[in-house]
Amino acid sequence: MSSPKLQVAVAGLGRMGLRHARHFATLTPRAELIAVSSPVQAELDAAKREFPSVRTYLDFDELLKQESTLQAVVVSSATTVHAEQAIKAIEKGLHVLCEKPLSTSPDISQTVVTAYKQSIKKHPAQKVICGFSRRFDASYRDAHRRMTNGDIGVPSVFRSQTCDKLDPSGFFVAYAEFSGGIFVDCSIHDIDLALWFFGENSVVKSVSAVGITAVQPELRKHNDRDNAIGIIEFYGGKIAQLYCSRMMAAGQEDTTEIFGTEGKIAVNTQPQLNLVNLYESTGIRREIPPDYYGRFREAFITEANEFTACCLDNTPPPMRLEGAVNAVKIGCALQESLITGKKIEFDEIGRRIETSKL
Amino acid sequence: MSSPKLQVAVAGLGRMGLRHARHFATLTPRAELIAVSSPVQAELDAAKREFPSVRTYLDFDELLKQESTLQAVVVSSATTVHAEQAIKAIEKGLHVLCEKPLSTSPDISQTVVTAYKQSIKKHPAQKVICGFSRRFDASYRDAHRRMTNGDIGVPSVFRSQTCDKLDPSGFFVAYAEFSGGIFVDCSIHDIDLALWFFGENSVVKSVSAVGITAVQPELRKHNDRDNAIGIIEFYGGKIAQLYCSRMMAAGQEDTTEIFGTEGKIAVNTQPQLNLVNLYESTGIRREIPPDYYGRFREAFITEANEFTACCLDNTPPPMRLEGAVNAVKIGCALQESLITGKKIEFDEIGRRIETSKL
Amino acid sequence: MSSPKLQVAVAGLGRMGLRHARHFATLTPRAELIAVSSPVQAELDAAKREFPSVRTYLDFDELLKQESTLQAVVVSSATTVHAEQAIKAIEKGLHVLCEKPLSTSPDISQTVVTAYKQSIKKHPAQKVICGFSRRFDASYRDAHRRMTNGDIGVPSVFRSQTCDKLDPSGFFVAYAEFSGGIFVDCSIHDIDLALWFFGENSVVKSVSAVGITAVQPELRKHNDRDNAIGIIEFYGGKIAQLYCSRMMAAGQEDTTEIFGTEGKIAVNTQPQLNLVNLYESTGIRREIPPDYYGRFREAFITEANEFTACCLDNTPPPMRLEGAVNAVKIGCALQESLITGKKIEFDEIGRRIETSKL
Amino acid sequence: MSSPKLQVAVAGLGRMGLRHARHFATLTPRAELIAVSSPVQAELDAAKREFPSVRTYLDFDELLKQESTLQAVVVSSATTVHAEQAIKAIEKGLHVLCEKPLSTSPDISQTVVTAYKQSIKKHPAQKVICGFSRRFDASYRDAHRRMTNGDIGVPSVFRSQTCDKLDPSGFFVAYAEFSGGIFVDCSIHDIDLALWFFGENSVVKSVSAVGITAVQPELRKHNDRDNAIGIIEFYGGKIAQLYCSRMMAAGQEDTTEIFGTEGKIAVNTQPQLNLVNLYESTGIRREIPPDYYGRFREAFITEANEFTACCLDNTPPPMRLEGAVNAVKIGCALQESLITGKKIEFDEIGRRIETSKL
Repeated sequence: MSSPKLQVAVAGLGRMGLRHARHFATLTPRAELIAVSSPVQAELDAAKREFPSVRTYLDFDELLKQESTLQAVVVSSATTVHAEQAIKAIEKGLHVLCEKPLSTSPDISQTVVTAYKQSIKKHPAQKVICGFSRRFDASYRDAHRRMTNGDIGVPSVFRSQTCDKLDPSGFFVAYAEFSGGIFVDCSIHDIDLALWFFGENSVVKSVSAVGITAVQPELRKHNDRDNAIGIIEFYGGKIAQLYCSRMMAAGQEDTTEIFGTEGKIAVNTQPQLNLVNLYESTGIRREIPPDYYGRFREAFITEANEFTACCLDNTPPPMRLEGAVNAVKIGCALQESLITGKKIEFDEIGRRIETSKL
Repeated sequence: MSSPKLQVAVAGLGRMGLRHARHFATLTPRAELIAVSSPVQAELDAAKREFPSVRTYLDFDELLKQESTLQAVVVSSATTVHAEQAIKAIEKGLHVLCEKPLSTSPDISQTVVTAYKQSIKKHPAQKVICGFSRRFDASYRDAHRRMTNGDIGVPSVFRSQTCDKLDPSGFFVAYAEFSGGIFVDCSIHDIDLALWFFGENSVVKSVSAVGITAVQPELRKHNDRDNAIGIIEFYGGKIAQLYCSRMMAAGQEDTTEIFGTEGKIAVNTQPQLNLVNLYESTGIRREIPPDYYGRFREAFITEANEFTACCLDNTPPPMRLEGAVNAVKIGCALQESLITGKKIEFDEIGRRIETSKL
Repeated sequence: MSSPKLQVAVAGLGRMGLRHARHFATLTPRAELIAVSSPVQAELDAAKREFPSVRTYLDFDELLKQESTLQAVVVSSATTVHAEQAIKAIEKGLHVLCEKPLSTSPDISQTVVTAYKQSIKKHPAQKVICGFSRRFDASYRDAHRRMTNGDIGVPSVFRSQTCDKLDPSGFFVAYAEFSGGIFVDCSIHDIDLALWFFGENSVVKSVSAVGITAVQPELRKHNDRDNAIGIIEFYGGKIAQLYCSRMMAAGQEDTTEIFGTEGKIAVNTQPQLNLVNLYESTGIRREIPPDYYGRFREAFITEANEFTACCLDNTPPPMRLEGAVNAVKIGCALQESLITGKKIEFDEIGRRIETSKL
Repeated sequence: MSSPKLQVAVAGLGRMGLRHARHFATLTPRAELIAVSSPVQAELDAAKREFPSVRTYLDFDELLKQESTLQAVVVSSATTVHAEQAIKAIEKGLHVLCEKPLSTSPDISQTVVTAYKQSIKKHPAQKVICGFSRRFDASYRDAHRRMTNGDIGVPSVFRSQTCDKLDPSGFFVAYAEFSGGIFVDCSIHDIDLALWFFGENSVVKSVSAVGITAVQPELRKHNDRDNAIGIIEFYGGKIAQLYCSRMMAAGQEDTTEIFGTEGKIAVNTQPQLNLVNLYESTGIRREIPPDYYGRFREAFITEANEFTACCLDNTPPPMRLEGAVNAVKIGCALQESLITGKKIEFDEIGRRIETSKL
């Protein structure tokens, strides 16, 4: 209790940034939120009201310069500046929890890893992770533990989906301009899970995808779709099937199944908001979480606490940063296949095989 | 295929009688429906249209008299004449499948058993059963098989409910005049199941019940209630908890749980109409059967086929007739307790203990 | 009851043939099973014992020749002779219910349609259908009715799987020699459902597939896999995702989801054997059907009855024969893609686009 | 963040006391745990290691005397001293969160209320509540909100159970000596829920109960049972059905249903540990929480935070203390009925009607 708390700043106060700020300010006993940055003054004003003792900055660089006691940064700004801000913090020797994706570009994502590899030589206790929240979810962890324990034999087929509730406001159309596309924005989680369940060193052999714009044809101007399905083939006899959508009626439907040679583990294939069932004249009904935060709030809080613990205690972080680059690479390939209609293939050391050579 | 078919008549063409007629006419390959009786000419006319080769009678006695090739009778008339018609058929040496309850009076129910015991001396192959349809249901049978197999240790607590969908038409108010009350009409099935799972020879030690009229206060004029809960205590350390209702919004909710010393078996605790789930803006929804026939149709068809088989093959019937009297006795005691507010107790040979002696 | 029964013969007495014989002999009141054929004498002997009045033939041609009163044939022989036997029966003007697939070759499948189109000119009341049993399943029908009713808006994404329980006997390896491969043997049902839900006239735009041999590498010698995933793209903005497997631990897992612009319908996403749940020291458990017959028995019986009814009453059959050719074509393309690793594309009138032109 | 934190002590460091200490020390941002007491030195030593800054006391009186900055006490000691410690804290003007039950005696429970009523005259901002954790559970709150909203019409029948996993160690036999019996120890939660859903001012009309010792006959020496079922009748046409058990195989099964005139709400009727389902050769399986803490951990944390908030902000507490006395009174009557076999009746102002007058 009396030990010093991790001094944390949050960069970005959008929807998820504000949640991160709250998690570190009030739900992470070993952390102290000391500063936040946002290019939006109104967001800073609101943060000041909610967290009176926290210092606010319009400029992230200024935050880094002023906050001399700072130990860790949560990068939760717009995706387009994730990598840049993460690298600046890394180069100052700070611990970093960067929201996913590191970047919508595999190459830029790689620069974050490279910066970390450089920095860690000087700061061997430095921790940098990419916030794949599902890795902190109790159900996914239980699934992974059982798989590791051999309960389903050899995991061979992976099926996962990230399906958002329909947002008729048009938000996702504007968002698509910078999101990297539905496979990079949504399926990145499923891809990360596939790598977690199949092994971080899994090498992708090919990807294929198709998609449609069933509800928001305007997405096409940003080379995006509102529903897409994809296949990932890994070397070593493992395959994955993905579905991502912005069209769900009932709410967030993020489900995953891992099929092994001796059994299967299903996560959230019967989504639910809570333990209530309603018996009405139209039947039996239950609600489901309206969005990913409704589904994964506890996981985000666990993420904050475990990130804090590994920084303070200098213990290994729960995942390696390199995986985040691999996930972006696969996501981008799927997005490309979605748009071009071509299957994309890779050799056994991960290099893309040119179509002309096929 | 070429073996002679059981020659069957159905007495009573109300809702369930007509269904029995259909089951024997078209879904019981080894049976042939040859005659029906009903005091309602319109019902006979409709039956004639549906089953052109079947003979129709306004008078059950006339049916018995005329149908010289008749082998079996299904008594599915008004409850008030169950016993009388069953006894007439029994005394003619015919096989009888009598709808539940044999009577709303334990004493009259006993007369059916007595008649059968007399008759079987002359007709040793004669079969008489009371139609407790749940005994023919695949799920209940699976539950019973598992219990008998020892899967849950010693069955000790039994909980069961028969809860009908609300019928705002007032049907149940009129029906209550002759139904014997909600414990005799609805819970008789649960009581029969308790006897099946705890053992046919279980001796009741006490019953208690309370009830309300939440939706149909007119039921009180017939000493009935629309919701009632009851307790049955058996000698030998077994207890049962019942709920019967006419108020369900979603449909028929007939669920049963058997708690043993090493496990529990639940039957239909997640009711459903079929294997469809609907994902809508209000959540995930499934429908449930609207009435007992929606839930137990297959069981009734199995009942028809197994009754036919035991008659034709002279094999033991799937249940003993005596149990039906015990069920009525317990149901009537619960109904009495429901109205008087008194606990009713029995000694170890089944005789009622007078309150004044308590 | 007294109206004449459809005179039916069953060709083939393997696992499914025997079941068809039973369904028509005892569970289809308006049909009469009069003859069966099989090249296996032992199967004929067993049939004779079970159905004493039925005539048996080693040679299907002989059956056609001898049975002058025959009205309808159920072709349930080896897949390799489906088309040949169906055509022979069609050319005699008989009604035909042919097991799926018509053939593992789209071209040969087409010859059945062609034969029917010729024959129906002379026999306008003749009915020929391919036995896609799921179309007769109560849950799929409820799903289709709701979709048609507009309950989910425009159906846009279809996901379905046919996943068999692991059979360690090696049966499927031998079977793969003639089955046409896992997409033709298993996924044909899902493909047919996709056509049913998206519209019979849906035109396939492309297919892609990958697969593995996780449990039975010997399948590779027959160009088959034990787990495969596939994508079908249709013209008009509809996509389908398939999974087929021979590796399930728990039993038959055949599930389907139809995602529309305003909702989703899920069929059997929570598989179950019956309504029993077991509460044990290891948690809550339910069993699931061990095979497709455990899941679809009722559908097969409905199929027998409805086929019989449409023949006797000269009403439209529940599905058109042409769809069965389309399903085989798509299944074969998926199987080819599975083996070659190539995406296969089609133009808007269904002609294959040569890769060299891509 | 910078506002002063509620200064809290926890009395009792048994299983639940230690958990309360943790909740207030690390999961309640607005509270600070400053002291703990326990008559067991080893428990104090362990607390000191876990919470180094917290002061420890063997004697609760000494804690009250020394801790001059103390603002609130959590009474989580043995049930036998709940009332005494609560009253001492109340009389010092401290806020109190007392574990349930206040006492196993209704009269002693009433003394806590009386002490509070006296004290509050001098300390109008003082808060005293009894820790009925389910009132803080998200699912129960959702259920209550829906009921209050009229979603199920008039709530009329209440069914609830508190069923513990079998503990073969014999713990519950020793525990029964002071627990007040299974209805007071377990069903108290269900009784409190009945009062919450039917209205805090509901007046009990009668109670009846029966029970057995299916697995631990030694309980009889403490006038207890390991399985019991009970009925509560309230004035105004409401009835409740309870089941309590120490015999569950799978884990904690705490389920509740509220049946209204227009619908039903079910809470936790499909218990689960998390969102994982396992598909194995024996079927589909899920685990359930092993104990009440596994089910209600989040509710306890919410309790700690909301209790803290109402103390700091002088807002109304989430429930009134008087209800806790009513729950004990009903629980004790059920326990008495369980042992004597007599129905117990009350008049409309809550006075017991003597049997001799019946």
